[in-house]
Amino acid sequence: MFRKIHPPVGAKPGTLVIHEQAVPPKIRVMKYRGEQLEERDIDAVAELAPLLEDGAVCWIDVQGLGDADVLREFAEMFSIHPLALEDVVNVPQRPKVEMFDEHTLCITRMALLRDGRIEREQVAMFLGSNYVLTFQEESGDVFDPVRTRIRKSGAIIRNSGPSYLTYALLDAVIDGYYPIMERFGEQLEALEDEIMLDPQPALLQKIHQIKRDLLALRRAIWPQREAVNAMIRDENPFITDTVRVYLRDCYDHCVQLMDAIETCRELTGGLMDVYLSSVGNRQNEVMKVLTIMASIFIPLTFMAGIYGMNFEVMPELRVPWAYPLLLVLMIIVAVGMVVFFRRRGWIGSLQKGPGSRDFE
Amino acid sequence: MFRKIHPPVGAKPGTLVIHEQAVPPKIRVMKYRGEQLEERDIDAVAELAPLLEDGAVCWIDVQGLGDADVLREFAEMFSIHPLALEDVVNVPQRPKVEMFDEHTLCITRMALLRDGRIEREQVAMFLGSNYVLTFQEESGDVFDPVRTRIRKSGAIIRNSGPSYLTYALLDAVIDGYYPIMERFGEQLEALEDEIMLDPQPALLQKIHQIKRDLLALRRAIWPQREAVNAMIRDENPFITDTVRVYLRDCYDHCVQLMDAIETCRELTGGLMDVYLSSVGNRQNEVMKVLTIMASIFIPLTFMAGIYGMNFEVMPELRVPWAYPLLLVLMIIVAVGMVVFFRRRGWIGSLQKGPGSRDFE
Amino acid sequence: MFRKIHPPVGAKPGTLVIHEQAVPPKIRVMKYRGEQLEERDIDAVAELAPLLEDGAVCWIDVQGLGDADVLREFAEMFSIHPLALEDVVNVPQRPKVEMFDEHTLCITRMALLRDGRIEREQVAMFLGSNYVLTFQEESGDVFDPVRTRIRKSGAIIRNSGPSYLTYALLDAVIDGYYPIMERFGEQLEALEDEIMLDPQPALLQKIHQIKRDLLALRRAIWPQREAVNAMIRDENPFITDTVRVYLRDCYDHCVQLMDAIETCRELTGGLMDVYLSSVGNRQNEVMKVLTIMASIFIPLTFMAGIYGMNFEVMPELRVPWAYPLLLVLMIIVAVGMVVFFRRRGWIGSLQKGPGSRDFE
Amino acid sequence: MFRKIHPPVGAKPGTLVIHEQAVPPKIRVMKYRGEQLEERDIDAVAELAPLLEDGAVCWIDVQGLGDADVLREFAEMFSIHPLALEDVVNVPQRPKVEMFDEHTLCITRMALLRDGRIEREQVAMFLGSNYVLTFQEESGDVFDPVRTRIRKSGAIIRNSGPSYLTYALLDAVIDGYYPIMERFGEQLEALEDEIMLDPQPALLQKIHQIKRDLLALRRAIWPQREAVNAMIRDENPFITDTVRVYLRDCYDHCVQLMDAIETCRELTGGLMDVYLSSVGNRQNEVMKVLTIMASIFIPLTFMAGIYGMNFEVMPELRVPWAYPLLLVLMIIVAVGMVVFFRRRGWIGSLQKGPGSRDFE
Amino acid sequence: MFRKIHPPVGAKPGTLVIHEQAVPPKIRVMKYRGEQLEERDIDAVAELAPLLEDGAVCWIDVQGLGDADVLREFAEMFSIHPLALEDVVNVPQRPKVEMFDEHTLCITRMALLRDGRIEREQVAMFLGSNYVLTFQEESGDVFDPVRTRIRKSGAIIRNSGPSYLTYALLDAVIDGYYPIMERFGEQLEALEDEIMLDPQPALLQKIHQIKRDLLALRRAIWPQREAVNAMIRDENPFITDTVRVYLRDCYDHCVQLMDAIETCRELTGGLMDVYLSSVGNRQNEVMKVLTIMASIFIPLTFMAGIYGMNFEVMPELRVPWAYPLLLVLMIIVAVGMVVFFRRRGWIGSLQKGPGSRDFE
Repeated sequence: MFRKIHPPVGAKPGTLVIHEQAVPPKIRVMKYRGEQLEERDIDAVAELAPLLEDGAVCWIDVQGLGDADVLREFAEMFSIHPLALEDVVNVPQRPKVEMFDEHTLCITRMALLRDGRIEREQVAMFLGSNYVLTFQEESGDVFDPVRTRIRKSGAIIRNSGPSYLTYALLDAVIDGYYPIMERFGEQLEALEDEIMLDPQPALLQKIHQIKRDLLALRRAIWPQREAVNAMIRDENPFITDTVRVYLRDCYDHCVQLMDAIETCRELTGGLMDVYLSSVGNRQNEVMKVLTIMASIFIPLTFMAGIYGMNFEVMPELRVPWAYPLLLVLMIIVAVGMVVFFRRRGWIGSLQKGPGSRDFE
Repeated sequence: MFRKIHPPVGAKPGTLVIHEQAVPPKIRVMKYRGEQLEERDIDAVAELAPLLEDGAVCWIDVQGLGDADVLREFAEMFSIHPLALEDVVNVPQRPKVEMFDEHTLCITRMALLRDGRIEREQVAMFLGSNYVLTFQEESGDVFDPVRTRIRKSGAIIRNSGPSYLTYALLDAVIDGYYPIMERFGEQLEALEDEIMLDPQPALLQKIHQIKRDLLALRRAIWPQREAVNAMIRDENPFITDTVRVYLRDCYDHCVQLMDAIETCRELTGGLMDVYLSSVGNRQNEVMKVLTIMASIFIPLTFMAGIYGMNFEVMPELRVPWAYPLLLVLMIIVAVGMVVFFRRRGWIGSLQKGPGSRDFE
Repeated sequence: MFRKIHPPVGAKPGTLVIHEQAVPPKIRVMKYRGEQLEERDIDAVAELAPLLEDGAVCWIDVQGLGDADVLREFAEMFSIHPLALEDVVNVPQRPKVEMFDEHTLCITRMALLRDGRIEREQVAMFLGSNYVLTFQEESGDVFDPVRTRIRKSGAIIRNSGPSYLTYALLDAVIDGYYPIMERFGEQLEALEDEIMLDPQPALLQKIHQIKRDLLALRRAIWPQREAVNAMIRDENPFITDTVRVYLRDCYDHCVQLMDAIETCRELTGGLMDVYLSSVGNRQNEVMKVLTIMASIFIPLTFMAGIYGMNFEVMPELRVPWAYPLLLVLMIIVAVGMVVFFRRRGWIGSLQKGPGSRDFE
Repeated sequence: MFRKIHPPVGAKPGTLVIHEQAVPPKIRVMKYRGEQLEERDIDAVAELAPLLEDGAVCWIDVQGLGDADVLREFAEMFSIHPLALEDVVNVPQRPKVEMFDEHTLCITRMALLRDGRIEREQVAMFLGSNYVLTFQEESGDVFDPVRTRIRKSGAIIRNSGPSYLTYALLDAVIDGYYPIMERFGEQLEALEDEIMLDPQPALLQKIHQIKRDLLALRRAIWPQREAVNAMIRDENPFITDTVRVYLRDCYDHCVQLMDAIETCRELTGGLMDVYLSSVGNRQNEVMKVLTIMASIFIPLTFMAGIYGMNFEVMPELRVPWAYPLLLVLMIIVAVGMVVFFRRRGWIGSLQKGPGSRDFE
Repeated sequence: MFRKIHPPVGAKPGTLVIHEQAVPPKIRVMKYRGEQLEERDIDAVAELAPLLEDGAVCWIDVQGLGDADVLREFAEMFSIHPLALEDVVNVPQRPKVEMFDEHTLCITRMALLRDGRIEREQVAMFLGSNYVLTFQEESGDVFDPVRTRIRKSGAIIRNSGPSYLTYALLDAVIDGYYPIMERFGEQLEALEDEIMLDPQPALLQKIHQIKRDLLALRRAIWPQREAVNAMIRDENPFITDTVRVYLRDCYDHCVQLMDAIETCRELTGGLMDVYLSSVGNRQNEVMKVLTIMASIFIPLTFMAGIYGMNFEVMPELRVPWAYPLLLVLMIIVAVGMVVFFRRRGWIGSLQKGPGSRDFE
């Protein structure tokens, strides 16, 4: 709910808090220009220096934030501001774009569906003149299709600069939310059917859970949208005009996701009403059964009680046909009550049939 | 709820996803200038080139998005940006206006009432210097009156440029929502009467459905309004000032529709309250019947129980007028209870008459 | 709810839809300048031409929109744009101000209290250099005091131009909402008292009706305010600076009305809560009576049932003082229950007195 | 709720409506400059002219609006625009600031706690080059401390111009809302305790009343804030820069009041929930008692009923220990039901103790 | 709820209200520049003058506002505007930034978790050319880590100016809210579990309390964010560009806190729904038990009642196997009722098991 890694209150700005479960960083480099492509795993940050020297696009992908020393080496090599480094490590940050002289920092939140659960991970991207430096919390991401595209000789991405790569990564992150939204859509539809058929308290729990997840999604997408907008709008030497057109498409996707989230939220709210009302109807049914049973038998029991009295002078008791007459009278009373309730619409097996058919 | 066709996550921008149920494209051309009018069905995109050569207005209407090759041929002939083509195919997109050098793209959502059901379809319009190129998901649209107007010799539309045609199509799309809103209005009124007379759970279901439909309508109209506003406001070489005046009228219609949708939404929320309250009243009625029946007969049954006891010494049992006296006492108790309940306003067949008349 | 007259979808812009119940137009002219005043009923539009020739202010008031030909004659004489004429006829339009070269069109909604019902009517005003042309749906309006002021020799209005007349008419329309808001205030107060005393389902119906009416009022006033603001703010050759000061007053009235409507809306929402809670309290009362009756008599009936059994060996039955003893025991049980319920605060006729006094 | 004095619909702008209960105006003048101070009650407006001649600051305080002639004399002497005079008389107006050539009009709403009731009164202030002219509805105001400050020789106010006096009056009006907000705070806290202890329907009534009062307060403070802001922001020859700094403080107070009102409103909404939930808990208690009583005794009564039957062949009836055995069985059944309900947590006097302790 | 210390209504601006419980001020000075560091407690304000003479950064921390004379001495020495001093003393003020010629005043609200309770305290900071003057309500604050950083030779803070110190203090104040938000997160999670397991009325009380606390937090953070933004955005000679970058980080933290607060608020609202629904389910359970018990035994009791009647002619009574037959019939009726209720899903110990497992 609110699990942010943050330095102790009052600590020096730029203090890094390495999470206990953080994995040690693995560094993968993809370097390409036109036909040229080089893919490497790197062990020490120092090995990067020669790779960056010629003008080819260099994507340095760091997976894992578990080693403060390695991160500081990166900070030194790429002139990363201490506050920017803090943002990379102290996850989760709000998605945002910040411009520095050497590069532009873009913080995003990636969402993955793994075994039916939504996993969230922060991705920080530094877009420099000829490199893109990404930091992920763990291995496992939505970037494999981008890697495939880079590997494909002659692809547009191979002939574009680092800002196109940044766009491609950002686009992959944002489009990664589509399957999640679709899953929500399916869950909501399934839930609606369940609520109609059998409103169990457990469903309320599920509704509450979906509400929470949607809230978390909205918190992730909303600032993402602002960040993409800032990249389109603000002067930025690292982003070309061609890429700006592509980012506009990215922005549209963010808006569509927001739309879908808001719609889901409203529908979830509506489901709550339907649930509560279904429960109310059930309770009503319980009440009706009680009322009908009690109303039919209480007067009859009273009548039987009358002739169970032991008064010496009760002339009816001696009349031979009194007993059958009383039984007939009881039947009349019972039938009268049934008719009364049927008129009120409380009993109505015959009418109920079409009523429930109407329901579908 | 959330059924957007979108390319696989991380795919190259401009990737087209042809929906399984997409129909193959049918191309219809209307070409007109002053008295001249030519109407044709076309099989191959290449046939279009000669038609576009002289300055007459050319409306190329493509119905069906089921063939990626045909779409790419269009893209090539009309210099459509890959992202624009993606927006045409990967439906539904949010209504929007995007300007390119060669043309202006206007994405709208058309709504049709077919057999009492609302069908939605995306219409993408490219407004160029002497052509309007429209892409629809299927055949069947709201544009027949526009075609009739074009066919009518001497009509204003015959002597106006392609931006007037774009306006006419846009206006037809937006005005197509009016009959739908009217149907909602009627449904809500009918629903209100039903809820007053007989609050069935099925009605709740209907309210929920209407809420969902209104939500979807709002999602369609709101960005439409923004798009029309952008066409009025932004510099655009393809839109003449005369047409801007007409677009202002279009914009007014969007605002009126939004107004109507918001009003319907608020009324739907109110209906929910009325429904819940009607159900509550019913439950109250059930409770009252139970309480009245139980309260009248439980004391009487107790009295009968007393004289059903088998104590040897119960002097009352021997008194000859004890039995009729007890019966009289019971009647007094019962009448007392009835009077008590009538005073509380729980029984009141006489007063109820005017009360329910007051209800109407 | 949503009853707009609109042309068939896709029709030519400017298509007029004459409503079946529309009355044929009656034309009244008031022409004045300083001491000079002329009042006339006119049969044919052509008669107007000579009246407009000298520079005197001419108020042409058209009541009834039932004749498309007459309307087109007006359009021709006053150079009314087809879309403007459409707005005049296809009622109701959203209140708005639109500027044309020849005149300024101002669409407003007039509200009248007639026999306790709110009647709404669209008034369209064309403000030209020396005329004000108004179109009303029917005869009957709120303009009689303005007519009286014109007839009064030496009044400010007699010495002011047509923009002052427009202001006077607009002000009359807006001030016409005050009596309606006052009636709402009174209704809400009456309703509140009724709900406190006797929460009947019919009252819910009334609350719902008031909510609908307030919604409609808000829809009428909100754009009116924007329209007046546009008249104050925008450059307009037909409106003098003196009149702008008066329009500021008009604008304040709109804001006050909006304030009052919002307040009424919030109060109506609050009434709903009070109603539901009152109903809940009633239901609680019903429950309490049932519980008290059942809890007192069920144990007693059981005790009576015990000694109604026919076992041969029941020694108590033979004890002579057993019967009176049991009766005493029963009284003790009953009194015990009553004390128990009184302690819980369920019975308390004595305490209830002050409680309900506290209520007022 | 909505009790505005307004002229008849369509009346001439500037029409004054003198309220029946309006008191005749009393005029008090305070004139000061440095050491010089003069305080006077004045009978005729004409007496004012000589007082205004030299440059000393003149505060003319008019209490009561009951005499249209006197008001018109004021209007003439101070060149008050007819619409401004209308705003002074036709109370209540929305707080606002309006600039005229001769002076600036500032309309505010003063709130007074008198005998525990909130009384509201409009104060209109005209700030001219060397005078402040205030109009109050009645005598009795929050300005006595300001008068005391003026009377104190050497006070800052004595050496400042009329705009400082206006600030002092405005500040007194706004600070006058603080005690009222404190009273609301106390009421809400008291109410909360009452609702926890004993949720009576009368409390709902009180909540509703507080909601209405807070709504009215918000309506008064919100435009006040805008008005003060306009005085700080807009060019105004009558307001010095020094006073602007003080007005910023005034503005802060308005914002704090708005904050407090919004907080109170949200808390009131929360109280409603607590109330409804407390009532629900009570109802639940009632239900439980009924269910426990009925569930225990109904089976016992049935058992007693069995052996009350008069069949000739009922062998148990003859068994001597059958009666005590049945009694034991009945006790077992009763104890079993009690244990069942205790397990469900419905009965639990022992556990309830700590539960309610936990409540505090 | 609303406990602001404020001067009497209408008092002179700048009037100080010393709270009864205000503690006498303790003055601590930290003076540093590069390697040089001096830490002192000071008794009289006059001792400060020599400390401020050379250009070293001077942090004067005043803890306690209980002595108006000392405060006035400060005001004189540092040229504090009377209104600024009023803001320092009359706590709590809304967080804000105000610029004066001599210094910038920054009002913030510090929150401390002490013994599990949130304590709030106002901190006013004056940022001058070479000093930072802070006023706290009491001793005890979140600034100890900042002091430690100052004491550490060679720290960045030692070589930066007073605006960096102001940033460090502001950052400590804002970061101090993180532990509080985490505690809320934990409380909400614990509460949710409790509500699922056992919805007690006391939990509602807790929810209400959390809502109030979150409201108070929001009121504290929201203007803080605006204030930090003003410091970043506005021209200010006392704030260097380097510090502006750090303040941007501060601003991000404010936004994150707002996000967390809003999320908690929505979740709290959701908990309310879950609580109400859990209570409703409980009530439903109670109803079902009652209905089942009554529906099974009422008909049986009636049957027993029939044969308890004393009619002379009741042939069944003489049939020897009538009694066992009736018992069998009664068992059939009871089993039938049980089957009926099981079909309706009201009884279902077998099905319930998996149902509640599904719940987790």
